[in-house]
Amino acid sequence: MNLRTTAILGAGGWGTALAVLWARKGHDVSLWGHTPSRIEAIRGRRENSDYLRGIRLSESIRLTSDLKDCAGAELIVFVTPSIALRSVAARFRETLGDHQAVLLSCTKGIEHGTGKRMSEILVEYFPAHPIAVLSGPNLAVEIARELPTASVLDCSEPEYAPILQDHLATARFRIYTSDDVAGIELGGALKNIFAIAAGAGDGLGLGDNSKAALVTRALAEMIRLGATMGGALPTFYGLSGAGDLILTCFSQHSRNRRVGEQLGRGNSVEQITSSMQMVAEGIPTAKSAYECARRLKIDTPIIDQVYALLYEGKSASQALEELLRREQKAERL
Amino acid sequence: MNLRTTAILGAGGWGTALAVLWARKGHDVSLWGHTPSRIEAIRGRRENSDYLRGIRLSESIRLTSDLKDCAGAELIVFVTPSIALRSVAARFRETLGDHQAVLLSCTKGIEHGTGKRMSEILVEYFPAHPIAVLSGPNLAVEIARELPTASVLDCSEPEYAPILQDHLATARFRIYTSDDVAGIELGGALKNIFAIAAGAGDGLGLGDNSKAALVTRALAEMIRLGATMGGALPTFYGLSGAGDLILTCFSQHSRNRRVGEQLGRGNSVEQITSSMQMVAEGIPTAKSAYECARRLKIDTPIIDQVYALLYEGKSASQALEELLRREQKAERL
Repeated sequence: MNLRTTAILGAGGWGTALAVLWARKGHDVSLWGHTPSRIEAIRGRRENSDYLRGIRLSESIRLTSDLKDCAGAELIVFVTPSIALRSVAARFRETLGDHQAVLLSCTKGIEHGTGKRMSEILVEYFPAHPIAVLSGPNLAVEIARELPTASVLDCSEPEYAPILQDHLATARFRIYTSDDVAGIELGGALKNIFAIAAGAGDGLGLGDNSKAALVTRALAEMIRLGATMGGALPTFYGLSGAGDLILTCFSQHSRNRRVGEQLGRGNSVEQITSSMQMVAEGIPTAKSAYECARRLKIDTPIIDQVYALLYEGKSASQALEELLRREQKAERL
Repeated sequence: MNLRTTAILGAGGWGTALAVLWARKGHDVSLWGHTPSRIEAIRGRRENSDYLRGIRLSESIRLTSDLKDCAGAELIVFVTPSIALRSVAARFRETLGDHQAVLLSCTKGIEHGTGKRMSEILVEYFPAHPIAVLSGPNLAVEIARELPTASVLDCSEPEYAPILQDHLATARFRIYTSDDVAGIELGGALKNIFAIAAGAGDGLGLGDNSKAALVTRALAEMIRLGATMGGALPTFYGLSGAGDLILTCFSQHSRNRRVGEQLGRGNSVEQITSSMQMVAEGIPTAKSAYECARRLKIDTPIIDQVYALLYEGKSASQALEELLRREQKAERL
């Protein structure tokens, strides 16, 4: 299979950064966005000023809000918000028909109700297609600025993993292959929940000692839940697990951390989300992960507090206080 | 054994913060420093303005530069720079004589030449005494400001671990017990080396994506070397391993990260150390760890680059470039 043409479905910051990255590498790239007026604005300015300010989109990137324009691509990249993935997949299935293509999910989330990973949703609609996933400590803006970055990739048909690695990596965007689709996706999804907790600590002014302790416990919690949901331990300790968790909890650019910071300062979830252009995936993922943990009977104290903070009106100070005051005993991960 | 009186040997930022912490808890605390003029200055201002500015030392903390004043204490805390620990231990042995006391090392380092951990040096001089260690993501200034903090403790005589935990913890300074003296010490020592590498990336403006990738690889390298040197895996994944590593690589307050940042900006090691009041333990520890890794035949690419940066005149840009351009392959930790 050739991979001459790439369609990127989702024109947020991450989708736009990937379009810029791969267009620079010489790929034939289309970038699809849901909202025609937004796509028009990007086409006019050659800049996605809502999501990735200051980065020029070259003329070679085709911008479209019509999924039909993407039907002929040989690599289809899903980078929609997690709550939109199923509907985009359903619509795109009609468009794609029998055309052979490799699918790649770069969306980080877990579906409400079903507890499904993004690639598990895709496989419902595209059971005959190879489905790959890519995740890691990857701030979109740094990739667009060609700062060195590493990511992890695996594919439902393992022989595609090294092919995609060669095709998608650059000198500045390194890709490591894996053999753990589930672990890659779960690390990328769960870390956003923990970033909200870490950000809440920032907003409350609790300092770096407690944040480092929280992130350490978060890694253990990611592993407890993630391993039960099908991921492998080494993946969680790698770039797409610990690496992405660290980045998201500490970087000033992380939107999930910023949501937590606003909560820590006493703003309500409604205030925060209504003032944000971007989707903070930790908000829906906290609900999905909380549901999964209850169903699987896994102890998830941090996820539980973030869930209470987001969905039960608990205050950030009370949630963090309860986390930090847990019984002092032997260290157990 | 009672633990009514505590002597803290070493009046840097960390020793001073511990004195403040335990004096607030009502302990009878003496703080010993090597340099009489510095101790005089602290006594005069009730502030250690060189190392812990803005924190008041209560009148109850006895300040001394005479080790004899510490000989009667029931808990002796070693918080000297790692290169001074052996000489202070040798001198203190003469002073202590047969007096029963629990020793606690809070110094983070590995001895040149011998490759010994700090508690292994202490056991040479005090073979009949219980020797405990305490380490974790513990910025001194945050402890002094009573921000929430967690740390890990173990003792050569395990029955002392819960006793010390009760004695030394506060509502804001949580202590978890462990059964791995070596792992606690090795995590605390090795992370300072990796913080220099992370700081060098900061100084070069390489961004957070690459820092998160570096820290992920650093954790794997800490474990490869640290496990061979006697530490246990769960310890490295805990507060005193991953937790302290994350803190030291990301916090603006970390002095080892700052040393790396200065190197990344093109300053020489000599320029940096001559302008710093404080000891950056990563500098001597890089040499010790490099020696240990060669002797034990462990692959330590990050430590090797930090060693070359500090001791062989390699530039930060070349060292980081070589780290980030390693062969792209399957993720292997």
